[in-house]
Amino acid sequence: MAFEHREEHLDERMLILQANIDDMNPEYCSYITDLLFEQGANDVYWIPIIMKKGRPGVMLNVLTDESQAEKMETVIFRETTTLGLRYVRASVHRLGRTFHAVDTPWGIIHVKAGFHQGELVQFAPEFKECEHAAKTYGIPLKTVYDEVRRRFMERTGEEGKA
Amino acid sequence: MAFEHREEHLDERMLILQANIDDMNPEYCSYITDLLFEQGANDVYWIPIIMKKGRPGVMLNVLTDESQAEKMETVIFRETTTLGLRYVRASVHRLGRTFHAVDTPWGIIHVKAGFHQGELVQFAPEFKECEHAAKTYGIPLKTVYDEVRRRFMERTGEEGKA
Amino acid sequence: MAFEHREEHLDERMLILQANIDDMNPEYCSYITDLLFEQGANDVYWIPIIMKKGRPGVMLNVLTDESQAEKMETVIFRETTTLGLRYVRASVHRLGRTFHAVDTPWGIIHVKAGFHQGELVQFAPEFKECEHAAKTYGIPLKTVYDEVRRRFMERTGEEGKA
Amino acid sequence: MAFEHREEHLDERMLILQANIDDMNPEYCSYITDLLFEQGANDVYWIPIIMKKGRPGVMLNVLTDESQAEKMETVIFRETTTLGLRYVRASVHRLGRTFHAVDTPWGIIHVKAGFHQGELVQFAPEFKECEHAAKTYGIPLKTVYDEVRRRFMERTGEEGKA
Amino acid sequence: MAFEHREEHLDERMLILQANIDDMNPEYCSYITDLLFEQGANDVYWIPIIMKKGRPGVMLNVLTDESQAEKMETVIFRETTTLGLRYVRASVHRLGRTFHAVDTPWGIIHVKAGFHQGELVQFAPEFKECEHAAKTYGIPLKTVYDEVRRRFMERTGEEGKA
Amino acid sequence: MAFEHREEHLDERMLILQANIDDMNPEYCSYITDLLFEQGANDVYWIPIIMKKGRPGVMLNVLTDESQAEKMETVIFRETTTLGLRYVRASVHRLGRTFHAVDTPWGIIHVKAGFHQGELVQFAPEFKECEHAAKTYGIPLKTVYDEVRRRFMERTGEEGKA
Repeated sequence: MAFEHREEHLDERMLILQANIDDMNPEYCSYITDLLFEQGANDVYWIPIIMKKGRPGVMLNVLTDESQAEKMETVIFRETTTLGLRYVRASVHRLGRTFHAVDTPWGIIHVKAGFHQGELVQFAPEFKECEHAAKTYGIPLKTVYDEVRRRFMERTGEEGKA
Repeated sequence: MAFEHREEHLDERMLILQANIDDMNPEYCSYITDLLFEQGANDVYWIPIIMKKGRPGVMLNVLTDESQAEKMETVIFRETTTLGLRYVRASVHRLGRTFHAVDTPWGIIHVKAGFHQGELVQFAPEFKECEHAAKTYGIPLKTVYDEVRRRFMERTGEEGKA
Repeated sequence: MAFEHREEHLDERMLILQANIDDMNPEYCSYITDLLFEQGANDVYWIPIIMKKGRPGVMLNVLTDESQAEKMETVIFRETTTLGLRYVRASVHRLGRTFHAVDTPWGIIHVKAGFHQGELVQFAPEFKECEHAAKTYGIPLKTVYDEVRRRFMERTGEEGKA
Repeated sequence: MAFEHREEHLDERMLILQANIDDMNPEYCSYITDLLFEQGANDVYWIPIIMKKGRPGVMLNVLTDESQAEKMETVIFRETTTLGLRYVRASVHRLGRTFHAVDTPWGIIHVKAGFHQGELVQFAPEFKECEHAAKTYGIPLKTVYDEVRRRFMERTGEEGKA
Repeated sequence: MAFEHREEHLDERMLILQANIDDMNPEYCSYITDLLFEQGANDVYWIPIIMKKGRPGVMLNVLTDESQAEKMETVIFRETTTLGLRYVRASVHRLGRTFHAVDTPWGIIHVKAGFHQGELVQFAPEFKECEHAAKTYGIPLKTVYDEVRRRFMERTGEEGKA
Repeated sequence: MAFEHREEHLDERMLILQANIDDMNPEYCSYITDLLFEQGANDVYWIPIIMKKGRPGVMLNVLTDESQAEKMETVIFRETTTLGLRYVRASVHRLGRTFHAVDTPWGIIHVKAGFHQGELVQFAPEFKECEHAAKTYGIPLKTVYDEVRRRFMERTGEEGKA
């Protein structure tokens, strides 16, 4: 995520920027995604759609705070082939988050926990750290995830809920 | 549908709740869908999307009246893995509906008819009743649908329009 | 369909040609589809897929008799951006088909019926003729379909099965 | 596009009309798309979605100015099977556009150029004209596109940017 | 699964039955899926595809042993709208499987474990039992899964590998 | 590509390995894709599909020479959650390829050209080199592609065809 906000809160001034693209080389997509995240996009996602004449097009979606919209537009108009951009207003409700260091046979791996109205509702190992451990130690990635989850659960004390 | 409103009308205080999910076991989806409908969601639908790092993710969408949003949030935060939820405002224009009992060789099957500005524009046999008839009598489901449609059309008097 | 074979039969020498395409302008797709059908392809279909680096690519599929494969290859290599083409062997079981002229308030519209082991299992109004009637008479397309189906069912005598 | 506006501008009174459809014959889709464009829709696109009971449904989306919404509704309720329609407000930022006639070995082909804050950011050959040239002269469509692009780039003087 | 084979093995006489469907009401899909599984299909899956005229169609896929193909055909031709069916030969490599009863605060829940060349490579809690526990005890489904996994891992003794 | 074969040829001993996955965390997908390519897979692609109970699953596809199948299996069974793997035989027709160094304002960028029956039918700039140039010089990626294509076309002498 572009920002790490520890308290549960509502971001009311968000925008979803959307462009339906039916004339672009898909090789550009990963590069465009990277640029948008570098510019501070909250999220970037592509949706396969069917456009005019049955073209297998794709809809680019960028979730951003309205104060960042202009930066995103600049990237989108420079790098994609779209001649138009839709703006849809949205509010985003974000859970409170905390980070926890979990000790594993492959080193420390962090877990991000989500809190809804003060209650732990979600926890997820950090992908990059799990991937690094899997590669370094030759352990299946799914096994690293399982172990990190297991150890986090034991730390929190109750079966599956803090 | 969670409610059956006979008159054509506009629901202006609807919300579409959206969450992009790239780290959840898809086995949870049907259960989550059921819970959301039980809680009164107007509609629940999933859209396959491409997320960060090319992950084949899924976007959960819940259409609900804003007065029900909190109930939906509770389910979504408890049961899915998302740490955030988008709210997009929408109005929903609903056609007037009436129900009709159609007599068939396999018992009574109901048809829901939709009215736009007083004119019949759509009619659809009730799925559960058609499925029950197909199973009970060993008739292809598509055949049950065809027969119910044919009989409804005859009742309404004109070829295909009331 | 490229050929109209009245008897139920099995075509054993079919091929499915497949190419995963992640660097082509989707505007070319409809044109390529048309050319392939003109060259005698049995079917041409596109499947949205996720390719290397998360690219939203598309898989071109062409179903053809193996004797026609070379003609399809020529079109595919000339017109798409692919550098490779997969061939997967398939047999195709085709139902027996008959055509029926149905009299409607909007003129004659044909229905294609499918027979499995001598029994009527499927019937479908011809799209182009229904579309023409809908446009010419200002009738909803779905209504034209409903009426053609209704009249065909009445002709066949039993409710929903011949 | 339904309108050709030469200046970069923002259309603030746009609506995205959406309907989730799980009980309609997909043969109707192309016809419905055509009708909506004829009625002046800015864009019409279909998104494959997963609906109740795992049905492979489709979401119809129509982008239109709010003054045209009623015309779109009429088509949607008459021609599709939906009993409801969502309206989502959107603004649409459109780039400035100009048209250029490019001389090619296959005749004149036009290019549409897009301008963002006065700077050329995008150019695209007109599909119909390219397709016509490809068919008439037996040239691969991708080759026509390449040549039109190459000649437009040379005309604009700098490598890739005007 | 239609059969539960404890040893790792190769099923060499499998067929993938495929039909591209562009003219069927998607409401029939769940019913057809149920029937095919009842008839002994190994797997039934639907792939959204783009067909002729840009129709958002769907490809039905049925994985079955060739000895069961005729039963599947009967269902497919009776219940779907397809006039043709493709057969693609496939071998299926199935892992060895064992079942384990895991004791949880919500009763016994079973885990299916997969063995590749004698080594434990995968384990998965049984969905129906987890769903039942979640409903009965009001526990999030993901929490039930987490706890079952945690307890299975502890039983197997090593972190994540047996 | 895992191998670079300059002559047009047919690889007749290819396999497409397929697994339908409905119970895996999508975060694992990019890692699994990377491992499979490292092991020598010719191609790895994911297809969104609808599985049992309407689960939004994904089909993993790995194209590989049959001599490499065992290495791919090892990765698939260790890293994914699948308990089974389908093998579908395929032949792959690969075009002849040559590489060309194109001089641009941003350095040398290579183009891969494809030959069908001795004739140039396709050419594509190398993505990584284009991306590097775009980042280094702050040029839109699409502009780099356009310029590389333009210069390659000029070198080959005829408009769009060698």
